[in-house]
Amino acid sequence: MAQATRPARGMRDFLPEDVRRREYVIGVVSGIYRRYGFEALETPALENIETLTGKYGEEGNKLIFKVLRRGEHESSGETDLALRYDLTVPLARVVAEYRGKLPKFFRRYQIQPVWRAERPARGRFREFYQCDVDAIGSRSPLVETELCGAVTDVLSALGFNDFTIRLNHRRVLSGLLEAAGVHPDLHGSALIAIDKLDKIGRDGVRAELVERGVETAAAARLLETFSGELTVARGREIVAAIRDATSGLDELDQILTLSAATSAAGRVRFDPSLARGLSYYTGAIMEVAVPDLAGSLGGGGRYDGLIGMFLGEEVPACGFSLGLERILVVMGERNMFPPSVERASADVMVTVFDAASMPDALKLAAELRASDVRVELYPEPDKLGKQMKYAVSKQIPFAAILGGDEIARGDVTIKNLATGTQESIPRANVAREIALRVPQGVLSLSKDGSRIP
Amino acid sequence: MAQATRPARGMRDFLPEDVRRREYVIGVVSGIYRRYGFEALETPALENIETLTGKYGEEGNKLIFKVLRRGEHESSGETDLALRYDLTVPLARVVAEYRGKLPKFFRRYQIQPVWRAERPARGRFREFYQCDVDAIGSRSPLVETELCGAVTDVLSALGFNDFTIRLNHRRVLSGLLEAAGVHPDLHGSALIAIDKLDKIGRDGVRAELVERGVETAAAARLLETFSGELTVARGREIVAAIRDATSGLDELDQILTLSAATSAAGRVRFDPSLARGLSYYTGAIMEVAVPDLAGSLGGGGRYDGLIGMFLGEEVPACGFSLGLERILVVMGERNMFPPSVERASADVMVTVFDAASMPDALKLAAELRASDVRVELYPEPDKLGKQMKYAVSKQIPFAAILGGDEIARGDVTIKNLATGTQESIPRANVAREIALRVPQGVLSLSKDGSRIP
Repeated sequence: MAQATRPARGMRDFLPEDVRRREYVIGVVSGIYRRYGFEALETPALENIETLTGKYGEEGNKLIFKVLRRGEHESSGETDLALRYDLTVPLARVVAEYRGKLPKFFRRYQIQPVWRAERPARGRFREFYQCDVDAIGSRSPLVETELCGAVTDVLSALGFNDFTIRLNHRRVLSGLLEAAGVHPDLHGSALIAIDKLDKIGRDGVRAELVERGVETAAAARLLETFSGELTVARGREIVAAIRDATSGLDELDQILTLSAATSAAGRVRFDPSLARGLSYYTGAIMEVAVPDLAGSLGGGGRYDGLIGMFLGEEVPACGFSLGLERILVVMGERNMFPPSVERASADVMVTVFDAASMPDALKLAAELRASDVRVELYPEPDKLGKQMKYAVSKQIPFAAILGGDEIARGDVTIKNLATGTQESIPRANVAREIALRVPQGVLSLSKDGSRIP
Repeated sequence: MAQATRPARGMRDFLPEDVRRREYVIGVVSGIYRRYGFEALETPALENIETLTGKYGEEGNKLIFKVLRRGEHESSGETDLALRYDLTVPLARVVAEYRGKLPKFFRRYQIQPVWRAERPARGRFREFYQCDVDAIGSRSPLVETELCGAVTDVLSALGFNDFTIRLNHRRVLSGLLEAAGVHPDLHGSALIAIDKLDKIGRDGVRAELVERGVETAAAARLLETFSGELTVARGREIVAAIRDATSGLDELDQILTLSAATSAAGRVRFDPSLARGLSYYTGAIMEVAVPDLAGSLGGGGRYDGLIGMFLGEEVPACGFSLGLERILVVMGERNMFPPSVERASADVMVTVFDAASMPDALKLAAELRASDVRVELYPEPDKLGKQMKYAVSKQIPFAAILGGDEIARGDVTIKNLATGTQESIPRANVAREIALRVPQGVLSLSKDGSRIP
């Protein structure tokens, strides 16, 4: 009896055309991050449960996938491992574990899947990739500035030209809440409501604030603060008396001033309504917005306390996480992928005439491959028409025909499957001639063995 | 209180130097597979439990990591998902699910981690990568031949020159067992013992065969068959009367003959003692051996029945799986990584003099990056000596010094940190001059955004 074949709920199979697009974006992202001196880190999919619990707030805790302890414990239902929920907590663990081995300023990027037991919905998956970039070890505003510059370069290289980076500061937010008259005990709860501003609108947030115990007058004052553009100077007036908020504004001022010297000039904007859901941020927070997308392409911020939870000693840290899946969705809708990403699986198909000529077909394929041409060898001695039909269906641009006549004459027919034109080429020259016809930039393997999307 | 920071048992963190080596090997493997017209597939880490159970034999079943069902079911200890155990069963599911959408001959490679709840030991991990390549849809011996050729090209490109590909056939094995007098009911069990020949030796296998119920005389005859080289012709004599085995030998003969026309010429050898542990193989089986490694670098074979378990209709399939972790271990022991893999995280470090000159340092870094130079910007206005020490500790080859004197003069000092020599270069020419000094082949991003190890 046949078994179910769909991927599990909220999971996706990526067929070759999907993988090509994913690898293209990942290649651009990692290439730019390397230009900024960030290095790749990879952590295991499974972490000890205690590593993850208590880091993502109550809602996050519920969404962690837990793995049954193996062996004799299985029947007890006991769990000891959990699937990676984000890339920041594993980074904090790594920094604490390898502190003596890592450079003082550890700059790492990490592009790996994470798993969350969300209720699946359109565009929301239980397995998805994050592209994180983090700088550990410095409180300098150059860190936030460089992150904004790197994210700008990534999105520009991918072809985005209409994004902004919203910038705020956790201490400024607290100051604004305080100035509006929200009781400090309610700040955390109020931030969760404010974070939904672009999803549920001003009236929704006002209602939720009141529901969460914020006085109606305070909620109104708060929303007034968030109406229209707020300059750093106007922010300073509002929170004049609140020292913590003022120091946050000073940091924002520095980041905005420094950003003017980078590619992020004109992209980074102070947005006092930016809250960010996660609880571990301690300083500047950032989020990338594009006009036609509810929600963001990514976000991040400073979290100077998280590594201390593992190390017992505070280590400054700041990072940015881009959501690969959302970037792919927007790029797909806007047709932003370059043609090379959409190309066929092979440059040439070599035909097979009969069993006796199979060794010759194998040799021809090997010669072409040695010339960096991607070759599919048709596996069976079917009729030539059937073989051609297959090559066309796979959009392979050329066929190298090694039929009865060709074998007798000692040559090979090269057929251009787009135009239908064909030429006879002496067997000895075929590899060179085909290599000349394969367009530049579609070679399957560069000299240093790099991946090409 | 500080938390535990080691990765979970049997799991590993890959620091940047590890990732560079891993990406180098993955780049070579995928590049070669693409030359053979194979396309990338990715499947989710989590599969429905039923997809995996009953595919890997009794021992395999026990090693599958199971994930607790989320939400209201959590307290029941019920599991509904499991972590990918290999890449072949997910492929079979994918072929069944997208049958109409995939080409008739689906050639795919897949390089992803799998998880097995093995008892951790030296060199044995609970999360490890497999590099699989499979051709679906044809029973032609060209398929096995091309797989052996592709694996040979991969290993040769990585620098291996002492490997052989052991080749056998499940029907030949059955024939040899039958000819030796092993009862058909015991064939499966006997194969598990024979598969351990290179681990526990002849005496160990003999003892285990007897323990598994094989008569002493039959066990002795069997081990005699496996002593020394067995030619296909000699195999034919031994199994003369057994038709199934003879057809298997014919297929081996074809594969060996065809392989002579490929890069695998001289590598592929008939080895009647090769058994392979997995139960789903139906035809030719292969395994790569290198002299100084117990166990193999990878293996595979034909499994014409597996897709039918999902589709209800038989689809021929054959594949090869290389073990990334073992390849990395051997390459590390033999110093096989090219120097470019071991290079530093940045080509240049730009220094920072004081807060006022930070915008200029940012601009210089941006110019260099635009010239494809990998730049780390030192984040804090520390003493120059401290900044230099940091660059040297990270083995960054050049420093671009933007100190007080340089800012006053309008130039930049380029210091070669290996030789200690330094030159003053006018600010406007710095990017061009440094780009000239950075060795070829270490550019961080090629024009098409490809990953470079």
